Amino acid sequence: MTRLQLFEEIKRKKSFLCVGLDTDIKRLPPHLMRCDDPVFEFNRQIIDATQEFCVAYKPNLAFYESSGPGGLQSLESTVRYIPSGFFTIADAKRGDIGNTAEMYARTFYDYYRFDSVTVAPYMGKDSVVPFIQPGKFAIVLALTSNAGSMDFQLGELSVTFQGRRERLFEHVLRIASGWGNADELMFVAGATHPELIGKIRNIVPDHFLLVPGIGAQGGSLDEVSAQGLNSTVGLLVNSSRNILYASSGEDFAEAAHREAQRIQMEMQIILESRF
Amino acid sequence: MTRLQLFEEIKRKKSFLCVGLDTDIKRLPPHLMRCDDPVFEFNRQIIDATQEFCVAYKPNLAFYESSGPGGLQSLESTVRYIPSGFFTIADAKRGDIGNTAEMYARTFYDYYRFDSVTVAPYMGKDSVVPFIQPGKFAIVLALTSNAGSMDFQLGELSVTFQGRRERLFEHVLRIASGWGNADELMFVAGATHPELIGKIRNIVPDHFLLVPGIGAQGGSLDEVSAQGLNSTVGLLVNSSRNILYASSGEDFAEAAHREAQRIQMEMQIILESRF
Repeated sequence: MTRLQLFEEIKRKKSFLCVGLDTDIKRLPPHLMRCDDPVFEFNRQIIDATQEFCVAYKPNLAFYESSGPGGLQSLESTVRYIPSGFFTIADAKRGDIGNTAEMYARTFYDYYRFDSVTVAPYMGKDSVVPFIQPGKFAIVLALTSNAGSMDFQLGELSVTFQGRRERLFEHVLRIASGWGNADELMFVAGATHPELIGKIRNIVPDHFLLVPGIGAQGGSLDEVSAQGLNSTVGLLVNSSRNILYASSGEDFAEAAHREAQRIQMEMQIILESRF
Repeated sequence: MTRLQLFEEIKRKKSFLCVGLDTDIKRLPPHLMRCDDPVFEFNRQIIDATQEFCVAYKPNLAFYESSGPGGLQSLESTVRYIPSGFFTIADAKRGDIGNTAEMYARTFYDYYRFDSVTVAPYMGKDSVVPFIQPGKFAIVLALTSNAGSMDFQLGELSVTFQGRRERLFEHVLRIASGWGNADELMFVAGATHPELIGKIRNIVPDHFLLVPGIGAQGGSLDEVSAQGLNSTVGLLVNSSRNILYASSGEDFAEAAHREAQRIQMEMQIILESRF
């Protein structure tokens, strides 16, 4: 999927919601445990219940890998089940030397057929460019939503680059945005730092930002939107736990439907004032 | 396995060699393609041929994931086949927020039963500490062996930290070494920067360093050893492609045996002068 196709989908559905499929087998409603593949069955019902309100799905690889090869089978079934027209993100945060990065790209693009993969910047350009392929996006971590973002990205350190002082996350944005344009790269920008989304937008005016941290982690949709929207919307805001576990009972899918709808309606108001 | 048990194994076998199992299905000798699981069969023969000469095995996750769930089955068979007494490393370079890092730890420690996992530092402390568990090691990327290490780890940037100027990889070592002691953490230090191994050793005198980049990537064992050895050896030097693909024919295992033995004999000379 291209950036402009994603923009069209966002306008059509009046939503820039990404549903994070962080499906924890230990948190599934008990009645699903009788199914052959409880994780896939949960995801299938979540996808059915939320597809009206979102434009993207983002399985978190860790949750599938933790069950071994069988967990990856659930992932494969899930990705195959996501209807065409949705932007799919492998939230894998990979980052390794060139020949290994190529194998990871093969994994997520050729085997599972995702549209994009989240990648870590620490190992530099040759660890990221194998994920830039026609119609695919490398989504580079810039500023993450966790407490650990204080350690290096935002921490006590500051970087002097060509006479300018900046923090590591700004430096990563500045350098990595030279590796690919807005049709090739996106960046992760955590909603738990809404005051910095505007700074990020200044460095990368055109790129889409994948924004985790709304909901369970405490970020605000209004603040992120005020700072982060650009001329093609430029935001994919993720919600995982708040939607998946809106109810822990047999009504989990209806509860997920209501929660996704609630977020979509907030997004519609935000979009209608701009597009 | 504890650090002192690893030290004892290194002395007993006169080797600090780690064999990297970056097994690419596209590079297997053709006669193996008739087996049910060619990747496992290749690894089984490599393990049989090299176990006399090494103390650790390091499967590179990308190479298994790229074949989907079946590839993970080959990984599982491989890890189960490695005899006890070897230190096992999941070369996965994971790094994510706390609840996701816990799922990855569950994957590699509880499911596959590895002794250690390589982890990326960009997301900070809460992305690393879930990998610190009794008898297990988080192996944190500090200075990697690829060209991209110039971009952030060593690049044009320099960090001012408490009045001291240092590069990002030094800062990562200084901060991350506060998250766990030498019985809990190791660091990746690429052999392609041998002049910096001594600097790394000054910052983390006691921790083991996992050293990739010997062989195919051009690093020198003598230089790395001169700068990196400590009182418990403190080095695991990895070789992957040079051993796995020493021959592309039916004699691949014999060729791997000779190459592993060649490296072990160099290591024996280095160790005998010190231990």
